[in-house]
Amino acid sequence: FKYIAWSCKEILDNHGEREDGIYYLTTANGMKYQTFCDMNTAGGGWTLVASVHENSIYGRCTVGDRWSSQQGNNPNLPDGDGNWSNRNTFGLVESATSDDYKNPGYYDIAAKDVSVWHVPNNFPMEHWNLAAILRYHTENNFLRLYGGNLFNLFKQFPVRYNIGSCSNRGPAIPIVYDHGNRESTRNLYGPKKKDEFDPGFITFRAINNELGAMAICSGVKPRGCNSEHYCIGGGGYFHPDQCGYFPSFDWDRLGRDQGWSASKEMTESAVLLFYR
Amino acid sequence: FKYIAWSCKEILDNHGEREDGIYYLTTANGMKYQTFCDMNTAGGGWTLVASVHENSIYGRCTVGDRWSSQQGNNPNLPDGDGNWSNRNTFGLVESATSDDYKNPGYYDIAAKDVSVWHVPNNFPMEHWNLAAILRYHTENNFLRLYGGNLFNLFKQFPVRYNIGSCSNRGPAIPIVYDHGNRESTRNLYGPKKKDEFDPGFITFRAINNELGAMAICSGVKPRGCNSEHYCIGGGGYFHPDQCGYFPSFDWDRLGRDQGWSASKEMTESAVLLFYR
Amino acid sequence: FKYIAWSCKEILDNHGEREDGIYYLTTANGMKYQTFCDMNTAGGGWTLVASVHENSIYGRCTVGDRWSSQQGNNPNLPDGDGNWSNRNTFGLVESATSDDYKNPGYYDIAAKDVSVWHVPNNFPMEHWNLAAILRYHTENNFLRLYGGNLFNLFKQFPVRYNIGSCSNRGPAIPIVYDHGNRESTRNLYGPKKKDEFDPGFITFRAINNELGAMAICSGVKPRGCNSEHYCIGGGGYFHPDQCGYFPSFDWDRLGRDQGWSASKEMTESAVLLFYR
Repeated sequence: FKYIAWSCKEILDNHGEREDGIYYLTTANGMKYQTFCDMNTAGGGWTLVASVHENSIYGRCTVGDRWSSQQGNNPNLPDGDGNWSNRNTFGLVESATSDDYKNPGYYDIAAKDVSVWHVPNNFPMEHWNLAAILRYHTENNFLRLYGGNLFNLFKQFPVRYNIGSCSNRGPAIPIVYDHGNRESTRNLYGPKKKDEFDPGFITFRAINNELGAMAICSGVKPRGCNSEHYCIGGGGYFHPDQCGYFPSFDWDRLGRDQGWSASKEMTESAVLLFYR
Repeated sequence: FKYIAWSCKEILDNHGEREDGIYYLTTANGMKYQTFCDMNTAGGGWTLVASVHENSIYGRCTVGDRWSSQQGNNPNLPDGDGNWSNRNTFGLVESATSDDYKNPGYYDIAAKDVSVWHVPNNFPMEHWNLAAILRYHTENNFLRLYGGNLFNLFKQFPVRYNIGSCSNRGPAIPIVYDHGNRESTRNLYGPKKKDEFDPGFITFRAINNELGAMAICSGVKPRGCNSEHYCIGGGGYFHPDQCGYFPSFDWDRLGRDQGWSASKEMTESAVLLFYR
Repeated sequence: FKYIAWSCKEILDNHGEREDGIYYLTTANGMKYQTFCDMNTAGGGWTLVASVHENSIYGRCTVGDRWSSQQGNNPNLPDGDGNWSNRNTFGLVESATSDDYKNPGYYDIAAKDVSVWHVPNNFPMEHWNLAAILRYHTENNFLRLYGGNLFNLFKQFPVRYNIGSCSNRGPAIPIVYDHGNRESTRNLYGPKKKDEFDPGFITFRAINNELGAMAICSGVKPRGCNSEHYCIGGGGYFHPDQCGYFPSFDWDRLGRDQGWSASKEMTESAVLLFYR
């Protein structure tokens, strides 16, 4: 183990390492794990902690839907698998665009900001940066207000069915674009959603008309209450057509209005989450 | 890797390490893995090898039920997933209270005794010891008679549907309490079971009236044949209402007699298994 | 980490290591992992990269069927889980005969040949070699023509439902037997298949009459189009009775002609895949 560091930021600051790539990190309790460090975006020091990868847009809370529920659409399990706010981990770093990924940094690192990359499925690590269809980060230190990471943020704003109404959204944080812009964000979510959201934000814990809870609205702040069309992850219960990671990104595949579907680029990309 | 050791006992004995925490161990074949060592209870040297975590009391042998069956309730699969007596492994040590955990030590370490901690779900590792609602260990070296670990014990006493009748139970071993006592054990399993078991033991491979096999009756020795109310893990087939880890700990949630249910404390705690 | 090597071949060539066992390898991107090296067969230097383990011959594309589909038999998911040609990984090396295994070497190593071991389920690593019911390897450097590994080969020959007809098979490569022979290969697949295949080959991406795609016909080259009886792995859709790893190895268990079933030895062995 070359360094004993808690985060990529520490490797950057204490050891001057500026190369993007895989490093060993350690938790506060001393558990070692490998992850990807982005050492260059906006000053570098970003630790990859998770990815949300849709294995089957047809799966409705079935095997592989770890970020919502693998137990079927079930109102008795309002939290679903609960992975947004527990210490369960899965996957390996190089598989982050081929399957779900969550490493101990997700709950263990004390961070200030997040960075998000939307990378087409199955792209190899060495091309993630260039292949991303959308990359952005926050820079107002908002995580300090919410316990230093998403694990703690989602304790305060549970991703749980029937926890509140559409107006009980969690924080919407302004973002700085590293690849893409407000217009391209809007286009990625499809043509019909002009009045549904404002691009230029990342929003946590949205709730829709049917009281389903979603974890992250990536790149946008909802105006309306149909957030199942542009927010990802979720609790364990949704409108029957919607359970899954991208609850209703595929509205038209069900033979309904195409305009409510997100772009193919979006639904076939993994969402990589970084902390700094 | 600081030490090359096969078990926590070896790290304690050969290196005098007395701090609870995460260490690297190695299997006989040289595979490295990380786990938690309890270096203090009753002399220390306890290796965490597994945890049984109920992800959904509503799941009846569905995804996540690795210690019984993830293939549905199926008499054609009498062993279910078979993890009590195979070399399959899953999970990471820090996730042991948030999901199932099984490391190579389970089948690889040659041990004499077991220690069991019932820790509320999702508690962080640094608080497991204090948060536990029940902790005990054996001290009569019983594992020596059964091949040195649970992997071998369960080869002799298969956790398999229809392998025998209620009288074909495996060994019931007396325990020494580290936190809790006979009375608190009884209370954890709920009010109505006074005549069903004797507290102060750990029992392996119980069989109920319906010929379902359970792996561990933690803290108790069955008297009757309704062991689905207080024994955990299992083969691949049970009475239809019961398949799962805690086969019938939740009897009242099905709208039946509340007295047959175990306490919420019990069903919402992970069962951590240690060897020494 | 004793060596920094990309493959077992490199450890053999650069460090003269000739002992079979577990070594740390590294990917091109620097991710470390442990796997088994066979340092003796036909000159040695074979890296274990994957195993295909049937957890339940009754499961029809259910949990645990990672090499076909865990999403049920679904024509909308023609690739199934897609693990033959993605970077997803699962399992640990010592569990390779107790569950599915796929390590980063599968997609990362640049190799020339494959070696295949059929090892009875749950055998410990130290006995894999002697316990194997069939062992063979290729020696014509065929992987050079297909991108250096199976990950790339299956990009060229997708394991996908409805990708072509029975005549669109991928390459059939002659093999050299290390344990077993043509006659024993034939017997392992059962009595009735005399005219269905020629032993002495390994074939990639077979397609059957119903347009189902299979990944590997181990030890044989199909003549006919009923390859579901002797080829393994698959896409996400098959004839309803067949979805799974060994799509129709168990024909007689369904109450049909016993002669079409493979031997019990075959269906209860894991298929270990090595590169060199």
